[in-house]
Amino acid sequence: MAPLKLTVAQYATSPTLAETLSNLREITIAASSTGTNLVLFPEAFLGGYPRTSTFGASIGSRTDTGRNQYQKYWAQAVDLGDTHPDGLGVYDAPGDGTREFLEGLAQNTGVFLAVGVVEKVGATLFCGVVFVCPRGGIVGKRRKVMPTGTERVVWGIGSPKTLKALKTDIAGQKVILGAAICWENYMPLLRATLYTQNTSIYLAPTADARESWISTMQHIALEGRCYVLGCNQFVTNITLPPFADDAAASTRPEEMGTDMAGEKVLCNGGSVVFGPMGEVLAGPLWGTEGTLSVTVEDLEGDVVKAKMDFDGGFSGHYSRSDVFRLEVAGLEL
Amino acid sequence: MAPLKLTVAQYATSPTLAETLSNLREITIAASSTGTNLVLFPEAFLGGYPRTSTFGASIGSRTDTGRNQYQKYWAQAVDLGDTHPDGLGVYDAPGDGTREFLEGLAQNTGVFLAVGVVEKVGATLFCGVVFVCPRGGIVGKRRKVMPTGTERVVWGIGSPKTLKALKTDIAGQKVILGAAICWENYMPLLRATLYTQNTSIYLAPTADARESWISTMQHIALEGRCYVLGCNQFVTNITLPPFADDAAASTRPEEMGTDMAGEKVLCNGGSVVFGPMGEVLAGPLWGTEGTLSVTVEDLEGDVVKAKMDFDGGFSGHYSRSDVFRLEVAGLEL
Amino acid sequence: MAPLKLTVAQYATSPTLAETLSNLREITIAASSTGTNLVLFPEAFLGGYPRTSTFGASIGSRTDTGRNQYQKYWAQAVDLGDTHPDGLGVYDAPGDGTREFLEGLAQNTGVFLAVGVVEKVGATLFCGVVFVCPRGGIVGKRRKVMPTGTERVVWGIGSPKTLKALKTDIAGQKVILGAAICWENYMPLLRATLYTQNTSIYLAPTADARESWISTMQHIALEGRCYVLGCNQFVTNITLPPFADDAAASTRPEEMGTDMAGEKVLCNGGSVVFGPMGEVLAGPLWGTEGTLSVTVEDLEGDVVKAKMDFDGGFSGHYSRSDVFRLEVAGLEL
Amino acid sequence: MAPLKLTVAQYATSPTLAETLSNLREITIAASSTGTNLVLFPEAFLGGYPRTSTFGASIGSRTDTGRNQYQKYWAQAVDLGDTHPDGLGVYDAPGDGTREFLEGLAQNTGVFLAVGVVEKVGATLFCGVVFVCPRGGIVGKRRKVMPTGTERVVWGIGSPKTLKALKTDIAGQKVILGAAICWENYMPLLRATLYTQNTSIYLAPTADARESWISTMQHIALEGRCYVLGCNQFVTNITLPPFADDAAASTRPEEMGTDMAGEKVLCNGGSVVFGPMGEVLAGPLWGTEGTLSVTVEDLEGDVVKAKMDFDGGFSGHYSRSDVFRLEVAGLEL
Amino acid sequence: MAPLKLTVAQYATSPTLAETLSNLREITIAASSTGTNLVLFPEAFLGGYPRTSTFGASIGSRTDTGRNQYQKYWAQAVDLGDTHPDGLGVYDAPGDGTREFLEGLAQNTGVFLAVGVVEKVGATLFCGVVFVCPRGGIVGKRRKVMPTGTERVVWGIGSPKTLKALKTDIAGQKVILGAAICWENYMPLLRATLYTQNTSIYLAPTADARESWISTMQHIALEGRCYVLGCNQFVTNITLPPFADDAAASTRPEEMGTDMAGEKVLCNGGSVVFGPMGEVLAGPLWGTEGTLSVTVEDLEGDVVKAKMDFDGGFSGHYSRSDVFRLEVAGLEL
Amino acid sequence: MAPLKLTVAQYATSPTLAETLSNLREITIAASSTGTNLVLFPEAFLGGYPRTSTFGASIGSRTDTGRNQYQKYWAQAVDLGDTHPDGLGVYDAPGDGTREFLEGLAQNTGVFLAVGVVEKVGATLFCGVVFVCPRGGIVGKRRKVMPTGTERVVWGIGSPKTLKALKTDIAGQKVILGAAICWENYMPLLRATLYTQNTSIYLAPTADARESWISTMQHIALEGRCYVLGCNQFVTNITLPPFADDAAASTRPEEMGTDMAGEKVLCNGGSVVFGPMGEVLAGPLWGTEGTLSVTVEDLEGDVVKAKMDFDGGFSGHYSRSDVFRLEVAGLEL
Repeated sequence: MAPLKLTVAQYATSPTLAETLSNLREITIAASSTGTNLVLFPEAFLGGYPRTSTFGASIGSRTDTGRNQYQKYWAQAVDLGDTHPDGLGVYDAPGDGTREFLEGLAQNTGVFLAVGVVEKVGATLFCGVVFVCPRGGIVGKRRKVMPTGTERVVWGIGSPKTLKALKTDIAGQKVILGAAICWENYMPLLRATLYTQNTSIYLAPTADARESWISTMQHIALEGRCYVLGCNQFVTNITLPPFADDAAASTRPEEMGTDMAGEKVLCNGGSVVFGPMGEVLAGPLWGTEGTLSVTVEDLEGDVVKAKMDFDGGFSGHYSRSDVFRLEVAGLEL
Repeated sequence: MAPLKLTVAQYATSPTLAETLSNLREITIAASSTGTNLVLFPEAFLGGYPRTSTFGASIGSRTDTGRNQYQKYWAQAVDLGDTHPDGLGVYDAPGDGTREFLEGLAQNTGVFLAVGVVEKVGATLFCGVVFVCPRGGIVGKRRKVMPTGTERVVWGIGSPKTLKALKTDIAGQKVILGAAICWENYMPLLRATLYTQNTSIYLAPTADARESWISTMQHIALEGRCYVLGCNQFVTNITLPPFADDAAASTRPEEMGTDMAGEKVLCNGGSVVFGPMGEVLAGPLWGTEGTLSVTVEDLEGDVVKAKMDFDGGFSGHYSRSDVFRLEVAGLEL
Repeated sequence: MAPLKLTVAQYATSPTLAETLSNLREITIAASSTGTNLVLFPEAFLGGYPRTSTFGASIGSRTDTGRNQYQKYWAQAVDLGDTHPDGLGVYDAPGDGTREFLEGLAQNTGVFLAVGVVEKVGATLFCGVVFVCPRGGIVGKRRKVMPTGTERVVWGIGSPKTLKALKTDIAGQKVILGAAICWENYMPLLRATLYTQNTSIYLAPTADARESWISTMQHIALEGRCYVLGCNQFVTNITLPPFADDAAASTRPEEMGTDMAGEKVLCNGGSVVFGPMGEVLAGPLWGTEGTLSVTVEDLEGDVVKAKMDFDGGFSGHYSRSDVFRLEVAGLEL
Repeated sequence: MAPLKLTVAQYATSPTLAETLSNLREITIAASSTGTNLVLFPEAFLGGYPRTSTFGASIGSRTDTGRNQYQKYWAQAVDLGDTHPDGLGVYDAPGDGTREFLEGLAQNTGVFLAVGVVEKVGATLFCGVVFVCPRGGIVGKRRKVMPTGTERVVWGIGSPKTLKALKTDIAGQKVILGAAICWENYMPLLRATLYTQNTSIYLAPTADARESWISTMQHIALEGRCYVLGCNQFVTNITLPPFADDAAASTRPEEMGTDMAGEKVLCNGGSVVFGPMGEVLAGPLWGTEGTLSVTVEDLEGDVVKAKMDFDGGFSGHYSRSDVFRLEVAGLEL
Repeated sequence: MAPLKLTVAQYATSPTLAETLSNLREITIAASSTGTNLVLFPEAFLGGYPRTSTFGASIGSRTDTGRNQYQKYWAQAVDLGDTHPDGLGVYDAPGDGTREFLEGLAQNTGVFLAVGVVEKVGATLFCGVVFVCPRGGIVGKRRKVMPTGTERVVWGIGSPKTLKALKTDIAGQKVILGAAICWENYMPLLRATLYTQNTSIYLAPTADARESWISTMQHIALEGRCYVLGCNQFVTNITLPPFADDAAASTRPEEMGTDMAGEKVLCNGGSVVFGPMGEVLAGPLWGTEGTLSVTVEDLEGDVVKAKMDFDGGFSGHYSRSDVFRLEVAGLEL
Repeated sequence: MAPLKLTVAQYATSPTLAETLSNLREITIAASSTGTNLVLFPEAFLGGYPRTSTFGASIGSRTDTGRNQYQKYWAQAVDLGDTHPDGLGVYDAPGDGTREFLEGLAQNTGVFLAVGVVEKVGATLFCGVVFVCPRGGIVGKRRKVMPTGTERVVWGIGSPKTLKALKTDIAGQKVILGAAICWENYMPLLRATLYTQNTSIYLAPTADARESWISTMQHIALEGRCYVLGCNQFVTNITLPPFADDAAASTRPEEMGTDMAGEKVLCNGGSVVFGPMGEVLAGPLWGTEGTLSVTVEDLEGDVVKAKMDFDGGFSGHYSRSDVFRLEVAGLEL
């Protein structure tokens, strides 16, 4: 059994979708050259995270400035051509080419990609993660089921059906991939939905850069007895996406964040990797762009050994599935 | 991106199908000469709306007079040669030449036509709308799924499969066309079927000339966040089609309607155009024949901005597709 | 059969819950003295509509000022003691006395109350409507299933199970009460859920004061063939609730709204009553506080007659329930 | 509103139950004298945690030595006189006086006690927590629903019905107390059961002394937006309870643990208190016995403000109770 | 009616799963050649019974040696591909081929197999029994609801839903099969669950080799008035599975058991068959591997006659179902 | 703690009640003289077991001979003066003096008596057991809830409320007494009712003298982890009670039974005592009258140690009371 190399990429969204895709390609190729089998990109990496924006909305009121800002944001979002009402990844509409770009990149490099996206469907935007397999193309997709705070003004509510974990092989090892986006990681029933499916690599793209996030990542590793990959962007007022402009922001970026080398740090990163016994394997990475990588010799074996102690998964010891019963609408568990 | 000019044609059916087609050609050519890209004609424009007629039917009783009247009406209806049991627009029977006429006209003028028709299939009549593309000919057709009142004596019940919205380009802009005929506009699940498909130009040919119809058109613009084109005939006792003769009518036309310049107005028009924020753009046009036109600079952009506020479409914010589930027999949404 | 008098009360929330309840009592007693059987109060009348507020939230950021504002708002919200996870109105926790207040008032005056509330459950707020019966106390409750825009920052997502219509007798007439709150009135599947239950008095408390709202009210009357009561607050910068303070607002109230007698009108009212043929019966009432009342001689008879024309309700002509199938999670229709 | 002082007591079980009770009394009186309103004692504080023991059991085999060890352990366990099959705290059997001791102590000091116990019912032992109110005596009890590892040889499986949270007043402030014991804190559905009941003080007596436990405590504070009190014993080979003797242990205590001042530390403590924004308020306390205290000015206010950001409780924003449905056998949520 | 030949196979698990399956095949083919219609294999026959092991666990402690031992054990366990949380036998995941092996063997030999297994689901192991029908493949499965002693460290708790008895035909006779594993046979409510379903062939795979076990088998025959097949392994220190190695065992195997021909007997067998009047029909078989067979002329008739005396089954005389009410969570009785 | 001596008395009923009471006194005094603390007498010892009788009944037919026989039997039955409809032992009617006799005997000898009786209430007979305490008199009573076979012609159906176990002290040791009569010992829910109450001395008076009965007694010891006292009569054709005369018997006694010293053995005894690990402590006693005694040093300790292995009692390990729920009408468990 060959080792499995997992990488998280802590980078900021570029000013345009084309530039972000180009950057994603470079990062992937570089990671591929050092043997990486899977790269995770942060929440909203494609499309951009509109930090500081309000889109002109207050309660009972909107502005045309805000609507124009939304249109600019919408224009940068990806169109994957998903035609299923729940966003389950049925791709028979054309889309904007992003899907083909990612699928081609995965195929050419042999790297499995997990990419945070802002996806447009009609006029609505969703915060999602796509799973791009070198062999099968986009084989899975998640959509955040509950956006946080003002995100709710611009992002739709994803269907819990997208919580279907993905069983696949990467580099010859059996993996079960699940993803929870940002504060979905605080939702115990959502995480239980992933554990129940025996998720062995838990992906946590996020925009939360507080130090306490590291505790949550470690806790999830121990609770889920799985590898946990946390991935955030590192963003300053310089790299904030152009559509997140001052006019619509409630607070001007330069009044926010932390000073660092003349810039204002708006999102300080904090990508990190934990193993299934809760041990930190890489990171946390603060205050810079960059990647973290870990090499796993026997992923299934590591998980089995860790679950001997605690198994909360599919009718595991600690699921007490005889007395706790979780149902997720539309998702057969 | 070139602007898109949309026109509604408020005209009455002529005494014969040939005359009506001729009139339709003149109106189309005139509209084309002023840059129109799409013309919508009213409900039953070809074939005629049999206002005032009872076709000799009362409950438990019919008359030969009524049967003769029906035969005359049937003779004026169009035969498109549609061979699909659900009227989905599979044209491999010869028809009566109307299809070729409309396709040629669209091709020659470059105008996309949406025409209200009374279509015959065997001995049955359907109230429908045909979409005639300059490039592709008749690329779509609707049939009213529920006729109103006495219409049910002469019109069949259309299949909901015809509610498939049409994605196409008109004048270089992406459009998604949907149509709801007359009181279909009061059917919330039918409209939802169109919204779910992200209809951006909503066509509403009708025979309802009450003022309250304008509220419904405005409501639909706000609910569907799309352009709404309402189109009715202007009809008096003079222009009532010949087959709708006195003998079979329960009430004589001259005892109906409103006096206007010595005529009795039987259908006062009320065509109107609304934009996706619910703003009136043209009309309503009352008491005369004529056309209304609007020019749209960026149809998709207008819709996106309006849907930032409210998106009830394909898994939009307000669809709550996770808890409301609409299924339409035979139509994959 | 005695006539049924229905009243809508267009008033603003007072600075404190106690004062609002006191005002509600006065309005109810006055209405009762003129024979009213049912009074509808506006959206968020108890608790208050936080117009202009952002609660310090922009995307990826919150402020302590905003959290303090939220606590003030939360303190004014009502606690009904509802213990059901879906807010279905199982009241076995004590609450804050509001329920008993409303139930006592209904009992003493004999007036059926439908009151827009902001309800607290733990730390979460819901925008709801309670139905208070003189005989049975609080016999029903709705919770808005999708808040609008920035409301999503402070209001939870209600369960569609609350869409159960309420069958009861008021003044000896059989009524079926349904309610849709503000932009829920733009959700066709939600309205269809109410029509399917044969709602005869459709209550539409709102915070939308645009003129186009009147079209929506009229359309619903025609679509649902029911009495429609629209009810809004009339609010100026003077009567804006204290917790909606400037500090947290993205736009200062005095820069918003329309001048009127030295005040800035932030919400201009527009309460209105339509009958089941789409005819306006009272209002719209713009630019002032006040009440509108209508007297209905035979509510069930009026609805039946209107539905002869168009019946979209429980397997009515126009439901086409054979081909359109609506399912609402957790609600047996 | 008076402030609320909360204390966790990190002490080891004494050689006999009588001595442990005596120690508990001294700690409580001392805490009371500095104004404490609630004291939490560790898992199995009364009865003792049999660290290092195997009770002579291997798979398919037991020994009489192990059975004798069990009898000694059983003799030290408390008998509360609970007669309900699920251990729900119906006390009509006499018990061994421990209940009366604790109730008297709470009454005399005015301190609310939450005490980890090993409770005997017939011949079976349960690991539990009792809530002892100065006014009402023992008003609640939990039993661990899934013991960890070899604990399963000697501890029964508690009923999930004991997860009912306790609403009460302490020092004039409204509190909702919930408890999860040791690795129950890794069970997301169990924690969700407590959050759903709006637990505001989350008690976590434990025997886990790894550093990663602190991450779990912090995560729970953020996930549950509540005060979290973690409490462990500090135990060395000297203070290990006598019944946990060498003969039956698979590993001799002196071969385990960490050296400290000539003793072997078998359980290093790690008691800690977090606030509802995830901020550490006291501890962690490593390597010694002692207490930690925090003073809370407005517990409900702190929780409400923290839940504005994230509310996973009773139909809170993030519960998505419309699509995630948790049922716990026998417990009405 | 053809006679029905029932066989119990008292054999030890082989060093690897492949070898055990191979042995199972040989035993089955041999039994088939002498006309056997059903073969019962012992508890944990596939996967192995880890007699003497502790898996490095004592209370509050685990070792990496124990975790490695667990991984070795897990590797030998069967993966049936059951995807139901309660292990009800929904097989849509691939599994490891064991299911197909057993189904093929049953089909080819025409023998109904009841096989004790250690089944893995994710990282958790369950002790179960599969029912393999020559016609339908795996048509039923049980999972032990309460492991015994140290088994609880490595085996999960099965759902009582698996207690559904299986009605089928074997060799043209109607049978109702139920199974209780090892000390489940001491659980009166569990057995009553099987009697209530009129179990006629009661299968009792076990690891209990004490002489008193024979009394329990006989008692069950008399209590349940059914055929009872007890089946155990015969195991010595030589045939103990390799993963049950010395290092992790609390007691070295050579210090356990009984001498026999230079080996240490760790499990002495004791397979036995009783008829529904409590009469011994075959065995007990002590001190060797081998099979026992009985031939039943009229199974249903024998049961009916025996139940004339005592019928504790589905509302039988002795069920007193009017006053004793048994409910089993999730199982409709 | 003094040892506890338990005795079973295997004797036949005498020709008259007075003689049987006299015999009972002698046996008790003798047992007392050797230190016995409790004596158990067989089923129907007072009143008599009407072996061989049919009471003239066949289906659809009775005889006067049989009625006369019943009257004779009824005359020999005891009248305890129990006035409770369920026979729960409320003694405020006078009775026939048997109660006072037994209470006096217990008081005088200091021996706790458990006596099988045939009790009359009006014209109905019940098969029961009375518990006679030296201090409290008759402190408990059981009535068989389901007579066996032809017993149903003469014995009523007892209430399950009589299954309340009796907690008391005997010789300074805490005991919990339960009784199951004859084939009640085959009723798993009935036995579970006793186990749930933590019965530590399980009394099994019977009339079943088959060898297989010993298996049932041993099984119960292991299942209930309690002391089990089985007690039967030794009866020949000579000692058969006079009312069981030939005329009414379907089979003449001399054609039944087994020859022994010129007599026909009709009931061969089989009294036996087992300890809580299933070990035989005394008996079985076949083929003669006589007593068996055992001395218990620490009854509670023995039970606790045995239950460490298996505890099916009051929420014990193996009760799985979270998923198996037993309710017994009228008995609070």
